[in-house]
Amino acid sequence: MKIDAVNIPTAHPADVSGLERLFESGRLRPEEVTCIIGKTEGNGGRNDFTRDLAMKAFEDLFSRRLGISPREVTERMIFSLSGGCEGVVSPHIVVFSTSPDGTPQSEKRLALGIGHTREFAPEEIGRMPQIEETARVIRKVIDDIHADPRDVHLVQMKGAIPAFTARSNMEYSRAASALAAGVATGEIDAAKLSDDVVCRDWSLYSTVASCSAKPGLTRTEVMVLANSASWGGDLVIDHTALRDMLDVPSIHALFARMGMPVNGQLDDDQRRRLVGVFAKSEADPRGTVRGKRHTMLTDDDISDTRYSRCVLSSVIAAVLGDTAVYVSTRAEHHGPLGGGTVAVVVRM
Amino acid sequence: MKIDAVNIPTAHPADVSGLERLFESGRLRPEEVTCIIGKTEGNGGRNDFTRDLAMKAFEDLFSRRLGISPREVTERMIFSLSGGCEGVVSPHIVVFSTSPDGTPQSEKRLALGIGHTREFAPEEIGRMPQIEETARVIRKVIDDIHADPRDVHLVQMKGAIPAFTARSNMEYSRAASALAAGVATGEIDAAKLSDDVVCRDWSLYSTVASCSAKPGLTRTEVMVLANSASWGGDLVIDHTALRDMLDVPSIHALFARMGMPVNGQLDDDQRRRLVGVFAKSEADPRGTVRGKRHTMLTDDDISDTRYSRCVLSSVIAAVLGDTAVYVSTRAEHHGPLGGGTVAVVVRM
Amino acid sequence: MKIDAVNIPTAHPADVSGLERLFESGRLRPEEVTCIIGKTEGNGGRNDFTRDLAMKAFEDLFSRRLGISPREVTERMIFSLSGGCEGVVSPHIVVFSTSPDGTPQSEKRLALGIGHTREFAPEEIGRMPQIEETARVIRKVIDDIHADPRDVHLVQMKGAIPAFTARSNMEYSRAASALAAGVATGEIDAAKLSDDVVCRDWSLYSTVASCSAKPGLTRTEVMVLANSASWGGDLVIDHTALRDMLDVPSIHALFARMGMPVNGQLDDDQRRRLVGVFAKSEADPRGTVRGKRHTMLTDDDISDTRYSRCVLSSVIAAVLGDTAVYVSTRAEHHGPLGGGTVAVVVRM
Amino acid sequence: MKIDAVNIPTAHPADVSGLERLFESGRLRPEEVTCIIGKTEGNGGRNDFTRDLAMKAFEDLFSRRLGISPREVTERMIFSLSGGCEGVVSPHIVVFSTSPDGTPQSEKRLALGIGHTREFAPEEIGRMPQIEETARVIRKVIDDIHADPRDVHLVQMKGAIPAFTARSNMEYSRAASALAAGVATGEIDAAKLSDDVVCRDWSLYSTVASCSAKPGLTRTEVMVLANSASWGGDLVIDHTALRDMLDVPSIHALFARMGMPVNGQLDDDQRRRLVGVFAKSEADPRGTVRGKRHTMLTDDDISDTRYSRCVLSSVIAAVLGDTAVYVSTRAEHHGPLGGGTVAVVVRM
Repeated sequence: MKIDAVNIPTAHPADVSGLERLFESGRLRPEEVTCIIGKTEGNGGRNDFTRDLAMKAFEDLFSRRLGISPREVTERMIFSLSGGCEGVVSPHIVVFSTSPDGTPQSEKRLALGIGHTREFAPEEIGRMPQIEETARVIRKVIDDIHADPRDVHLVQMKGAIPAFTARSNMEYSRAASALAAGVATGEIDAAKLSDDVVCRDWSLYSTVASCSAKPGLTRTEVMVLANSASWGGDLVIDHTALRDMLDVPSIHALFARMGMPVNGQLDDDQRRRLVGVFAKSEADPRGTVRGKRHTMLTDDDISDTRYSRCVLSSVIAAVLGDTAVYVSTRAEHHGPLGGGTVAVVVRM
Repeated sequence: MKIDAVNIPTAHPADVSGLERLFESGRLRPEEVTCIIGKTEGNGGRNDFTRDLAMKAFEDLFSRRLGISPREVTERMIFSLSGGCEGVVSPHIVVFSTSPDGTPQSEKRLALGIGHTREFAPEEIGRMPQIEETARVIRKVIDDIHADPRDVHLVQMKGAIPAFTARSNMEYSRAASALAAGVATGEIDAAKLSDDVVCRDWSLYSTVASCSAKPGLTRTEVMVLANSASWGGDLVIDHTALRDMLDVPSIHALFARMGMPVNGQLDDDQRRRLVGVFAKSEADPRGTVRGKRHTMLTDDDISDTRYSRCVLSSVIAAVLGDTAVYVSTRAEHHGPLGGGTVAVVVRM
Repeated sequence: MKIDAVNIPTAHPADVSGLERLFESGRLRPEEVTCIIGKTEGNGGRNDFTRDLAMKAFEDLFSRRLGISPREVTERMIFSLSGGCEGVVSPHIVVFSTSPDGTPQSEKRLALGIGHTREFAPEEIGRMPQIEETARVIRKVIDDIHADPRDVHLVQMKGAIPAFTARSNMEYSRAASALAAGVATGEIDAAKLSDDVVCRDWSLYSTVASCSAKPGLTRTEVMVLANSASWGGDLVIDHTALRDMLDVPSIHALFARMGMPVNGQLDDDQRRRLVGVFAKSEADPRGTVRGKRHTMLTDDDISDTRYSRCVLSSVIAAVLGDTAVYVSTRAEHHGPLGGGTVAVVVRM
Repeated sequence: MKIDAVNIPTAHPADVSGLERLFESGRLRPEEVTCIIGKTEGNGGRNDFTRDLAMKAFEDLFSRRLGISPREVTERMIFSLSGGCEGVVSPHIVVFSTSPDGTPQSEKRLALGIGHTREFAPEEIGRMPQIEETARVIRKVIDDIHADPRDVHLVQMKGAIPAFTARSNMEYSRAASALAAGVATGEIDAAKLSDDVVCRDWSLYSTVASCSAKPGLTRTEVMVLANSASWGGDLVIDHTALRDMLDVPSIHALFARMGMPVNGQLDDDQRRRLVGVFAKSEADPRGTVRGKRHTMLTDDDISDTRYSRCVLSSVIAAVLGDTAVYVSTRAEHHGPLGGGTVAVVVRM
């Protein structure tokens, strides 16, 4: 198998015209599309309906193209839409497609696998049952795609919030998903986990998790991006953990590892190889960045989630020279406290 | 004469405790303070009262320390407070002080001069009379401090808006101030100017202007920062124009010119030499950055001024590894359209 | 013919379940639906995508129910969705349906007619050609439904903005639509109109207009609600102009005219008769309400449109004891400056 | 003793010119000013510095007029400044002054008393020790002004938050203050109170409390407004509890009890008698108003506190025909859940 991916700008949340053009031109086949990750221009909060609008447009499109029902579309593919294109972020989608490939590869290439947990009971959320079941599924997906856990660079999850219970808020669900990713990839020692560490012991974290939580969802959807010797194509993925929101050296080191040394900013050739950049950010809850006070958490006019997306996307875009950056927020146990994570898919 | 400057974090808009400590310790003498430039944590808009609050605190402080009235404080010193500490920006003030210095310098050093225009009639605002009188004053200040116009790197101006007239809005006043700076420094050919180019011909701009406009102010206050062979101390200033909000290479080149080559990010030694970083930003009015759509101008929840300050301050902070960055917005004829300007004061 | 109308709460912008239930129960027939007016919970601004999301849901629903294409749905019915459910406003839709009715009426009853102008050239927008053509169409619709111009109480219009020209902004298009309504209903003397009065002479206004403007729309869509002796059913409409945002006495007088005298607040029986309440609001551009300063126009964190909708909807809801109130903003030449308009449909 | 009070509009948060004019004219004597309650045009949140700006202006004014230090000003008088002038609310202050009065009154008149609790330990906040000590002080102030607890109509409190502890957040401090007011006035049976009911049993509430909480304040400041036969002057106070945000009938009944029957809206004569209107509001946490959904709690762009102030102030202003209304938010145990409280001071 091989993965291809294409980064498509959108003119508004319901814009699928770019995707349609690729279908028309034969560049992309609708039946091979596995997953779409994208940023829509809402506020990323509870009243952000841009994700629903985009979903309706995707359901219409694939329902029409594939002759299946809208429900079948969402069962067949993974959609991960994140609201909030603050600052320079350009609304865009990254479309992953999977196709057979007989060519043997000398290098590990991007592999993509999906799975989902069993349904969770409300009282399991944010506790060990959610962590263990999610870790089990992630490990299984890693196995399915013949990847080494150390080659996993992004575990995108839409976490369950089956119903209201004491712990069933979004924060705890995301935290448990992230801890599960850490266990599955070997970043976290499972022996250190218990109900008590969730949203408390911030020294435990995954640097490859990217978790959201969706009220009403009863099971967690999992997508794993890794490099694998069993997969073909010309894409590879790598990632880094940021120590804080200004950790440019880590981003430079990430690109250097991928054979793209940064001289101030990616050059045109390097930029052309970029397929997708996926990050998680959080305004440092301690109220400072590098010892100096920030005001993101005490501004009652603008949410800290909007600020933190705006800051990290600007920092990353400054390195890339490109604004098609996916940054989402709320990053419990995603990288070190006040830091974040960045994963990059490039064409070799 | 020599200039000293110190960058002081503030805990809230009325916080002068850092300044008081420097007075107490003898590190700074209140009677030598010439100018304070700072960022306060408001929205930077019409209902941003943090600047007034900070002004009251400064007036109280200097009035008490110098035994003069609050009005005399504002006549004696220049205060340039800009609201809006979006994202990682840490509220801070840069305090400039001037003192006699007999030591001859082998290198040009930071020089600071202040002046003000005559009072403007409302109908002069945004037109040639404002431009010509402002340029005359800037040139005089440059002469006063024995600087070469080509060594001017920042012309901070608080522009007049004497009363309402057709053109007397803030946009036109700032534009005229910026064009005046361009004429005075030789960046703009005076022969190309007319009433018609103001806020229309964006190919005409200054890269050293930093202009605000204040309704009710009848004359424009001017502060010039330049390097001059006649001044002592250990500070120097330089600046660059940004081609767009992601123009990291220009910032790197600026530091390289100052003998501080950037390897990804300033290192600790380089960072310790930073005294003040002053920038102007604007969300590109054409709606794109490097060919990709941005949504800063179509978001009716958050002002584009807040976004553009957040973006440029993040980009600059990413280079510096420091969040005490002064970025203000509304940048008509300040650098190329969609770009911006950055001036940096460092200790040699 | 007769009109029926029903006020349906929505759980989110794409919620058509209430409408579906009425179809299922036979209370409403999809083929009889003529028009849907509703409030969605967005910001009402340029980046409010809740209206698009609702439109997609309506198109899906009627397309499926009536076996026609989404485009045919929008050609067959009028949809007037307004974003912004500030404060107590409850998101809701008012669905109007038209059906044959042989019963002769002794009283005038609610009549509904729709029409549209020819396509406008960009340079016609905000000028006499737009006004005259729109007035012509409104008069024709009034004739079509056999109504007296003095019995017209609401002219809901979605105005053309074919493309960018000097005057083709939304403000001028809405203004021209409102002036056209005033001419068609006899509120404005056509002899007083010229290009120059548009957005300038605020003494000229209609009290029955409710106009929006939609960039990209080349013709103006018109819906007229009036009372007519030729129509049946049990609905009637009336309206009032508010002198300012606190003009409760005018709202009381309106209900009294409809046989519903208000003792502080509508009682339960009166409230049950309410079908729809449609208002236009504007924060007084002079900066005061009843001689006292308001801050709606100088708040750079929250738009005056959101404030003015919140205020007027609260005032109206206070009279009604009901929160299903439709208030939209930007009210050029809609009632006196700083005032507004209110139209009410009740069941007799 | 007698109380006088005057309602003064302000042009900006630091505007004391209206107060100065009253001092100049002899209408008011600075040494008789006891208390100032006012609304400033900030966001009412953590980064609302308009209250600090106003305080600085008041401290300057009284310090200068009375020849005392700023600290003595704040120890001598009570200042209760609330940020947030959403919608039609006009920024204003109500200045209370106390002076000797030998004239015996036949009717009870407005009495004002102030006091403060002992210092609280952090662990006492939100628990019985805070409630009991606060209730003791309120009762003592009521006794001091010779009022019957049933004649108390407003207990304005600035509550202690000495430092961070598990319960020492603002919510619990306000709640304890409100419960204390309920005990002191006899509205709440003290036997029903325990640590467990705080912020949990919403059936327990006071209808006269108006509590804020201020981090860093170690003791709670208390001001009681009541009617008393021992006091002179021509002011009286009364209050009502609102069942919900649209409870206009209760406001009408309140005015009727004060001899001011409302016919739709107060008439000019009635309006001239108004001195101050003080309310507490809260967006109904159950998400509905009168059975219909509201969106104040799910809007991530605008805080529910701003919406609820905007709504209730509009409703009250609609009854008054006046926009100098004081509404503050966060109303734990202040009136029934989803309701609010309104106190009115009028001139007889």
